[in-house]
Amino acid sequence: MGSNNVNSVIVVGGGLVGSLCAIFMAKRGYHVTLFEYREDIRTAKFARGRSINMALSNRGRKALRAVGIEKIILESAIPMKGRLLHDLKGRTTSVPYDALTGQCIYSISRNYLNNVLLTELEKYPNVKIYFNHKLMSVSFEDERISVMNLITEEITTHQADLIIGADGAYSTLRRYMQLTPLFEYSQTYIQHGYLELVIPPENGPKMTPNHLHIWPRGQFMMIALPNKDNSWTVTLFMPFAKFESLRNAAELKDFYYKTFPDAVPLIGEDLLVNDFFKVKPSALVSVKCKPYHVGSKFLLIGDAAHAMVPFYGQGMNAGFEDCFLLDGILERRSNDIAGSIEEFSRERVEDAYAICELAMYNYVEMRDLVTRPSYRLRKFFDELLFKCMKEKWIPLYNSVTFSNFGYKQCVENRKWQNKVIQKFLWTGGLVTSALFAYGLRIWLY
Amino acid sequence: MGSNNVNSVIVVGGGLVGSLCAIFMAKRGYHVTLFEYREDIRTAKFARGRSINMALSNRGRKALRAVGIEKIILESAIPMKGRLLHDLKGRTTSVPYDALTGQCIYSISRNYLNNVLLTELEKYPNVKIYFNHKLMSVSFEDERISVMNLITEEITTHQADLIIGADGAYSTLRRYMQLTPLFEYSQTYIQHGYLELVIPPENGPKMTPNHLHIWPRGQFMMIALPNKDNSWTVTLFMPFAKFESLRNAAELKDFYYKTFPDAVPLIGEDLLVNDFFKVKPSALVSVKCKPYHVGSKFLLIGDAAHAMVPFYGQGMNAGFEDCFLLDGILERRSNDIAGSIEEFSRERVEDAYAICELAMYNYVEMRDLVTRPSYRLRKFFDELLFKCMKEKWIPLYNSVTFSNFGYKQCVENRKWQNKVIQKFLWTGGLVTSALFAYGLRIWLY
Repeated sequence: MGSNNVNSVIVVGGGLVGSLCAIFMAKRGYHVTLFEYREDIRTAKFARGRSINMALSNRGRKALRAVGIEKIILESAIPMKGRLLHDLKGRTTSVPYDALTGQCIYSISRNYLNNVLLTELEKYPNVKIYFNHKLMSVSFEDERISVMNLITEEITTHQADLIIGADGAYSTLRRYMQLTPLFEYSQTYIQHGYLELVIPPENGPKMTPNHLHIWPRGQFMMIALPNKDNSWTVTLFMPFAKFESLRNAAELKDFYYKTFPDAVPLIGEDLLVNDFFKVKPSALVSVKCKPYHVGSKFLLIGDAAHAMVPFYGQGMNAGFEDCFLLDGILERRSNDIAGSIEEFSRERVEDAYAICELAMYNYVEMRDLVTRPSYRLRKFFDELLFKCMKEKWIPLYNSVTFSNFGYKQCVENRKWQNKVIQKFLWTGGLVTSALFAYGLRIWLY
Repeated sequence: MGSNNVNSVIVVGGGLVGSLCAIFMAKRGYHVTLFEYREDIRTAKFARGRSINMALSNRGRKALRAVGIEKIILESAIPMKGRLLHDLKGRTTSVPYDALTGQCIYSISRNYLNNVLLTELEKYPNVKIYFNHKLMSVSFEDERISVMNLITEEITTHQADLIIGADGAYSTLRRYMQLTPLFEYSQTYIQHGYLELVIPPENGPKMTPNHLHIWPRGQFMMIALPNKDNSWTVTLFMPFAKFESLRNAAELKDFYYKTFPDAVPLIGEDLLVNDFFKVKPSALVSVKCKPYHVGSKFLLIGDAAHAMVPFYGQGMNAGFEDCFLLDGILERRSNDIAGSIEEFSRERVEDAYAICELAMYNYVEMRDLVTRPSYRLRKFFDELLFKCMKEKWIPLYNSVTFSNFGYKQCVENRKWQNKVIQKFLWTGGLVTSALFAYGLRIWLY
């Protein structure tokens, strides 16, 4: 540490991003207090819903590595080296993520990851974790927050040198920030919901391993990510109206046999019907705001700052990268908190906007474009140029997933690439036209 | 009324839109309860800030007419038949709003208008108005709201068949709606603030009457609207950074003599310096959300539903039109509240989005485009075609300000007009090119 200050920090939210951020701050030597609204997931009697999988990639790994837990996490993760596309007849095509160097993304259970992070956090003596504690209100003027112990219903107020909201897409801290002058905010929902199904462990080995499986169907899609116990977590993304149109077991089975015929025996008819009608499909929200800080102490990170739709697999990775970047800025600025959160906010907003937009766009790519010849042609070109030029021509997916370029930079590279390709096509077109015109002239006169 | 139901309605907010909406509901025979956070402005000892002017136009007038108070309002309003542009040398150009039929917009004091509306509302025996009552919380599940009497600090809960939030750009009801599933919301601020100045009554007659005066200066602008007492309310719109760069009287005067030379003697040096440094510039927010209703009882109208920047003079008019349209739908649906608020929400959202966008665009037009030859050429064309085709070619400003077309329809008309003009220009361009090519060919061979 570049300074002798001992700062205090409150982290609101003990999910993936909150607990990793708390580790970073503890590692800096700060006095850390973490408030988590839910009970301790490690001792919870009832797991909430099915195990959700996350796709861990370079940005997330970099942050985990910085606090020394990348290795233990990767040991429990399953590498996915590409997409496996299922067509209507059950035929599959493998599309590698990184044909050149073979880099992978990793399927990891959200609960397991959260467990490891909390257990790591507890190793630091300068950390206090309070479960069942909910953020109730925020006063930016008095620079304090009030928190309720949900067991005793006691409310206490707290102050710190830095108060970080890692309290997710429906952040309470952000709701208070929204009332401050000039705070930009938007929340949008896509007209598609999602519903989780499962391929049980006994059928898991029938799936081609080490892939993210996709059943792209144009207006909607189904995906599957592998689990350590051989099961696969299956997620169906579809317009809400389409969900509502499937009213009973017969209609559902009919739809599945027509649309995902090869998936029915893997999931099993009974489990399919049971899981499908057990819960309603969930909504997908995208949140943008600006700035991420208020005053000299309050900061948003992770989904609280930039919740995105899940189609780029970057929500968690972007949140982990937030922690990594914030730590780097605090280091460079010798723990000047006010300056650091202002800089973080200023630097990060545009990258977050960029990945939120990319995540929206990638839904169209995954469910529709991947099946089109024009997409494959472009991918072929991209990979060819990538092979020839390496550093200079990194395809968009690869720069987002495997590089450390800012997300905005990734988008700008892509725009530049598009321009180059356009020019190439125009040049080709002009040469062809000129030759044609020349021929015509000879023919005419 | 088409039905014998006697419905109860709560209106939150007794500003312009809230009090007009309450009148409409009272006129329908509903039992009306209105809660207003502030004290009664008619008996308030201290007026809040300077008198703000509103530009009343067709949509607002139509709504006032429907409840029988258009005449009394217009008697205290000042017609403005066009823009009067001031250039850097103090020369002026009059640009009529409606060269063809001479329609006007009307400058009216916000306070006076609110007074008249509240007094009119009190005439109905089926109305209760509570001032100093603030909306504290909303339960959509129990369909009730809690309200605090700010004098006694007593909190009471209330239910009604219809609960309307007309509580402005920073609406409390909307904040609760924002937490409901699938509610779309955005708030954006422009990087420009505004500050109010005044031309005192003794200098007022030196201004050309019956105009909205504009000093367009590219990146910023100043405007002035007339008051009944001969004074003019002056508003300076400018980037916040520009405001901050004027740090003392000398810098301010230097800026004003260079930028608005003819305005300095009208405002007066001392009053200018005094008013400019008395308060900080205010921010301008634009709010979009969707839907406007939750469940079968809760509805947003006016700024609470669609706050916009003030550059089209449509904020109040759109809010008044909300009241008019809601009343019409309730009438047509024989007071079926659930169906009516769903329909209102469905029908109105796109029009509100359109006018919010237009208001943003019009800032560029007012501060910059109006001074350009291309703008004047287009306006000339528009007016010519308007004269020839009347119903078929209504210029954008005229359809927004003087017609009853939905705002979205106004934008679509404009797009169609643009296409026609484009085609016209292309045809002209092609004919010219063809002639040129023909000439070239003769010359070459």
